[in-house]
Amino acid sequence: MANELKELTSRSENYSQWYNDLVIKADLAENSAVRGCMVIKPYGYAIWEKMQHYLDNMFKETGHVNAYFPLFIPKSFLSKEADHVEGFAKECAVVTHYRLKNDPNGKGVVVDPEAKLEEELIVRPTSETIIWSTYRNWIQSYRDLPILCNQWANVVRWEMRTRLFLRTAEFLWQEGHTAHATEQEALEETHKMLNVYADFAEKYMAMPVIKGIKTANERFAGALDTFCIEALMQDGKALQAGTSHFLGQNFAKAFDVQFADKDGKRDYVWATSWGVSTRLMGALIMSHSDDNGLVLPPTLAPFQVVIVPIYKNEEQLAQINEKIETIVAKLKAMGVSVKYDNADNKKPGWKFAEYELKGVPVRLAMGGRDLENNTIEVARRDTLTKETVSCNNIEMYVTNLLDEIQNNIYQKAFNLRESKTILVDSYEEFKEKIEDGGFIYAHWDGTLETEEKIKEETKATIRCIPLTGDKTPGKCMVTGKPSAQRVIFARAY
Amino acid sequence: MANELKELTSRSENYSQWYNDLVIKADLAENSAVRGCMVIKPYGYAIWEKMQHYLDNMFKETGHVNAYFPLFIPKSFLSKEADHVEGFAKECAVVTHYRLKNDPNGKGVVVDPEAKLEEELIVRPTSETIIWSTYRNWIQSYRDLPILCNQWANVVRWEMRTRLFLRTAEFLWQEGHTAHATEQEALEETHKMLNVYADFAEKYMAMPVIKGIKTANERFAGALDTFCIEALMQDGKALQAGTSHFLGQNFAKAFDVQFADKDGKRDYVWATSWGVSTRLMGALIMSHSDDNGLVLPPTLAPFQVVIVPIYKNEEQLAQINEKIETIVAKLKAMGVSVKYDNADNKKPGWKFAEYELKGVPVRLAMGGRDLENNTIEVARRDTLTKETVSCNNIEMYVTNLLDEIQNNIYQKAFNLRESKTILVDSYEEFKEKIEDGGFIYAHWDGTLETEEKIKEETKATIRCIPLTGDKTPGKCMVTGKPSAQRVIFARAY
Repeated sequence: MANELKELTSRSENYSQWYNDLVIKADLAENSAVRGCMVIKPYGYAIWEKMQHYLDNMFKETGHVNAYFPLFIPKSFLSKEADHVEGFAKECAVVTHYRLKNDPNGKGVVVDPEAKLEEELIVRPTSETIIWSTYRNWIQSYRDLPILCNQWANVVRWEMRTRLFLRTAEFLWQEGHTAHATEQEALEETHKMLNVYADFAEKYMAMPVIKGIKTANERFAGALDTFCIEALMQDGKALQAGTSHFLGQNFAKAFDVQFADKDGKRDYVWATSWGVSTRLMGALIMSHSDDNGLVLPPTLAPFQVVIVPIYKNEEQLAQINEKIETIVAKLKAMGVSVKYDNADNKKPGWKFAEYELKGVPVRLAMGGRDLENNTIEVARRDTLTKETVSCNNIEMYVTNLLDEIQNNIYQKAFNLRESKTILVDSYEEFKEKIEDGGFIYAHWDGTLETEEKIKEETKATIRCIPLTGDKTPGKCMVTGKPSAQRVIFARAY
Repeated sequence: MANELKELTSRSENYSQWYNDLVIKADLAENSAVRGCMVIKPYGYAIWEKMQHYLDNMFKETGHVNAYFPLFIPKSFLSKEADHVEGFAKECAVVTHYRLKNDPNGKGVVVDPEAKLEEELIVRPTSETIIWSTYRNWIQSYRDLPILCNQWANVVRWEMRTRLFLRTAEFLWQEGHTAHATEQEALEETHKMLNVYADFAEKYMAMPVIKGIKTANERFAGALDTFCIEALMQDGKALQAGTSHFLGQNFAKAFDVQFADKDGKRDYVWATSWGVSTRLMGALIMSHSDDNGLVLPPTLAPFQVVIVPIYKNEEQLAQINEKIETIVAKLKAMGVSVKYDNADNKKPGWKFAEYELKGVPVRLAMGGRDLENNTIEVARRDTLTKETVSCNNIEMYVTNLLDEIQNNIYQKAFNLRESKTILVDSYEEFKEKIEDGGFIYAHWDGTLETEEKIKEETKATIRCIPLTGDKTPGKCMVTGKPSAQRVIFARAY
């Protein structure tokens, strides 16, 4: 809340520092007093709320309902699915006691040793186990299926190295958990939600993504297949933006969830789970923003238009106020969210810099000459260009411009990704090109051994086996063994 | 999800059992595998979502923004405000470790003793301490004030005796935390939010409430004054439905949050906090429901109208479907949420009972004769009355009826409360009348001693000192000492 202009480190100077600066200076989030946990500030939370709103609508349109399951998971539940416990038990917050008491030796409070839990509780890192233990009581027959539940919640994974939004100990997310009578239906659900995520990323976040399957090594702990959407950030690093898991019957078996089909035959239930988190905030920031600050797609901007008056005296301000009032009303009638900032304790230049930093898509400014000419200055955040236009039909002009901005930043991100996407056939070339960042399509022999060798030697991981595009077989760039199709490598967040 | 009709215990037989039955059988919530934590099922959560939606709008209309603060609170933070730690430290979930490991002696996982936290973390029972430690960095001068933040979150209080929605170890809520330059402004905020809660309860929940101040003994731990809304349930027990706290400068002092005013003079910041929780679900259920099941106000019902076809054969069903389709379209155009249940695996009688149990405000049913006569049967959930009306203008009829139902259930609840509200002047009479339940207005001498004596002897507590109504002084019913005004006693949830 300091008043001075806020200088950002430039991306070319230090991309990582640029990101950190931007998150802090645009008032999106900050580190809290609790290691690894962030405070999401009002401006950042307003963007997250818009993401939630559109995602929630998409979930409901595809037949899902929301529910809420406990924050705590009994320790023994985690052990029931063997892969799952391997994947999640290593990094979790453990509740061991349920009471504090006054410190007998002095000030403050201490844990009351008499209030030790018989079984420790884990703060949920993900909810498959508690949810499938619940579904057991909900499912008897095929008539109880499918169950299509989603939950908006906080989860905790004890990360050692954290970064605001990208990797935090506590984060906010949604997790869908569905139960089906057949493998086919569960697979369809997995794909359906992958598509929902891809649509959301492209339409609302203006962020192009690639849909693919994770290798066995990168799968969710407990899944038979993990599908993902992968995006490319401006620095050439990949970011996994959402995952949709086909869980097979693993959790149904772990929690003994069976159903009777129409003929009374019993079988285990088929499962999916899928989630996106506040990590999307990091993806959004890094997809579009520049050295002047945040660039937001109009669909997710807390306000899409800001209007700033430029005036010499109170009388002129009164005239501008009157004129702007009608413009605000017209814009609101078109469904545009608009803020008129005529606060008199800040200069226009300060306001311009502030709203640029905060990524407001369109800035309108009206001065004395505009007043005379019935014009207004329109500045685009994405291109940083300005022009003066008539006030007549300004609302049409602005709504068209918002659409254009939404399309433009998508196209810009798409072009950037394309310019950073290459095909590579030799491991030597790979080792050289991976230094430039970007997506590299290359052939891989399908073995964990080769995957790990590449990761060790180049820090690149297989982001996914893409679902669409060229499916021509070839030879692994490392071993020369047969490869079914090219997979996508990148260094990643 | 069983198909048989679901019998409820009647209220007169066992009110408490009726409540538990209803929560379970109407699919609102259930106990989880974790002691004291509930699962909020989709139907219950849909009601909570509607509550959230309307409350969130009201918060935003009164200038508030949402943010998110950490789930965990360092143990030492709780000790910084002396009253606060007394009030909350006794019942909290304590995180002591951040890792599990494979059990060296066998199966499963155990807490890794090497992953012990230097300072234990408390799962937030409420967030004043973590938020005021954050505000410290946000506030330098009067220009940074006011801060008007709200948070939607889960909190944990280790309750020994829990009841679904009414008292659970984990619950969902919102907590507003505001910071102000002056005492006056903070007091105004406290009242403003109390009024928001009262409006919400009356307009949306159709639940009459009394606004009042808590006695010192019943205050929030750390507040100078706690304001509340109190409702009366059908069994004559009171339920505190929301609180708004004037925190003075207590938390600003505990976390050293000072600001410079216009003259550069430094002072501690003034604070409020206010919250409502999923406890409102319990209040909603107990305000209106009857021995047949839930009764929901139309504003909060997941769907306001259900339509059931009654048919002899496929051909007739097709005709009814066609007719209903236009009715559904008309209702939706009026903003009515409607479900057409023409599933063929359930009989109309089963459906009638199911939607009655679930409290759907209006049920429409169309049979062969209706088809001939262009009529439809309209059943009200609140009065359990039915009539046959013309299909012409059915959408107007239904929207008017929904308004009427909303008003009627408010009036019914209001009348019930009035019939259970009495004035009592002698302690003897008090001890007799308190057995009947209800609100008792009586004089009290203002001392903790008398308050506790009454509580011990009658299990009645002072629900609040009402803000409006008769302010005539009198004499304490117990001690005969002077009393400034009557206060409200009741046994409470």
